[in-house]
Amino acid sequence: MSMPGVLVDGRPADALAVADRGLQYGDGLFETFAVRDGRPELWTAHLARLARGGERLSLPLPDPGLLAAEAEQLCRGVARGVLKLIVTRGVGGRGYAPPRPCRPTRVLSLHPWPAHPPGHATGGVRVRWCAHPLSLNPRLAGLKHLNRLDQVLARAEWDDPTIAEGLMCDPHGHVVEGTMSNLFVLRDGRLLTPPLDGAGIAGVMREVVLEAARGLGLVVAQAALRPAEVLAADGVGLSNSVIGLWPVRELEGRTWHAVHADLRRLAAAVTVARGA
Amino acid sequence: MSMPGVLVDGRPADALAVADRGLQYGDGLFETFAVRDGRPELWTAHLARLARGGERLSLPLPDPGLLAAEAEQLCRGVARGVLKLIVTRGVGGRGYAPPRPCRPTRVLSLHPWPAHPPGHATGGVRVRWCAHPLSLNPRLAGLKHLNRLDQVLARAEWDDPTIAEGLMCDPHGHVVEGTMSNLFVLRDGRLLTPPLDGAGIAGVMREVVLEAARGLGLVVAQAALRPAEVLAADGVGLSNSVIGLWPVRELEGRTWHAVHADLRRLAAAVTVARGA
Repeated sequence: MSMPGVLVDGRPADALAVADRGLQYGDGLFETFAVRDGRPELWTAHLARLARGGERLSLPLPDPGLLAAEAEQLCRGVARGVLKLIVTRGVGGRGYAPPRPCRPTRVLSLHPWPAHPPGHATGGVRVRWCAHPLSLNPRLAGLKHLNRLDQVLARAEWDDPTIAEGLMCDPHGHVVEGTMSNLFVLRDGRLLTPPLDGAGIAGVMREVVLEAARGLGLVVAQAALRPAEVLAADGVGLSNSVIGLWPVRELEGRTWHAVHADLRRLAAAVTVARGA
Repeated sequence: MSMPGVLVDGRPADALAVADRGLQYGDGLFETFAVRDGRPELWTAHLARLARGGERLSLPLPDPGLLAAEAEQLCRGVARGVLKLIVTRGVGGRGYAPPRPCRPTRVLSLHPWPAHPPGHATGGVRVRWCAHPLSLNPRLAGLKHLNRLDQVLARAEWDDPTIAEGLMCDPHGHVVEGTMSNLFVLRDGRLLTPPLDGAGIAGVMREVVLEAARGLGLVVAQAALRPAEVLAADGVGLSNSVIGLWPVRELEGRTWHAVHADLRRLAAAVTVARGA
């Protein structure tokens, strides 16, 4: 089969109307699924987050059964891949007012599994700080919406392929997450992760990590973190739906020489939880 | 001719690649021109703002001569209309890292002139407050980029057609602008407009208004404004490239019974400046 395969509103296509509000305004949501053995992982959790986003944006969503059928069609026979689902508010005229009625556009696209070195998951990754801040907006925080210029500009700050991720702060200097991942910090036996009430994306894998941590008996808390507190941590981890949980090995000069035992146990529990 | 006419990379088209980063991430910029007698107004000022945005986003822009030729092609014979120009970072793979090399996509589309009542310009408009705040990000502030979910959600807060615009605050409660316009406030003989260093779009017409105000001998200043200060103003105005300068007649119960003489003079000077 040819990758990536794309379905727009259920039909094979590689183009979308210029008047679609996804292009005009970033007026939509997306989800990124790891695909394994023909099946998108954590389907229910991703669809639940999409539903929460749809509610916050008053964006009517396609029928979940339809999405499942189209996802199955695209993923059939795919041993490993990545499925991206975009839902936009559909075609509208010029002007910000949402079209009424609104006919959302759905785009499913299949992509190759990224060729991350296996050492990333076992030995950890090199990470840097990004200067570009995340936009602060309590009403948009947590959502996986299509306004992703912050991530684009932060990710453009480096092209050293040995650096796997960049950490981003909000405009007040609190560390929030990576450009494509959520952040976890081990400190004094507790697993801390930044609150996402002002900026950031509430990752599906973040929930899996937090749930797995509780299952391991770790004390879990949300905590505002300054860069110095991340650097002072006993261990640092990054999560997303494709990578699972990566330990951080190096952060601009600060080195964690061995992967913390709790991070190792946590990564193993996450692997089990995602059904891999 | 059929409206809207659309050119994608110079060719008539109404679709764009699904993999375009304009759709995937809102990774691009746009400009909205008033078209009169076959000509987009304030072309040089719009292109200068586009260039500033391209620099801030490290987004290579199409040749200005090419854009001018395509705009002329679309606008030929159009007595009144609206031209929208979008430039995106073009097609890329999955992931935030910008494609290298990057081949930007340009989309020019022609739209009907909006049917605003003529009284809006002369007698003023009814305006409301929006609850949805503008995202705060000093690195993106001022740019007319494609991440416009804030404006979409604010504009969705009302559908009363007698309300022409909604005013938006930043998350700290400072008034910044309208969903589609910049804001001006007359107070004690001075013309004040909010600074755009944290949020908002630096409108081309905003510059025209400020320049015209200086030409009329008005004292002009940027000033952080709370909602109460807008309500207490001697006069309030709204500007964008299509509407020019509208006085505000009513803001949720507060009424300005006559258009302030300075606003009237200013609107007349703006009309002259835009060559109408």
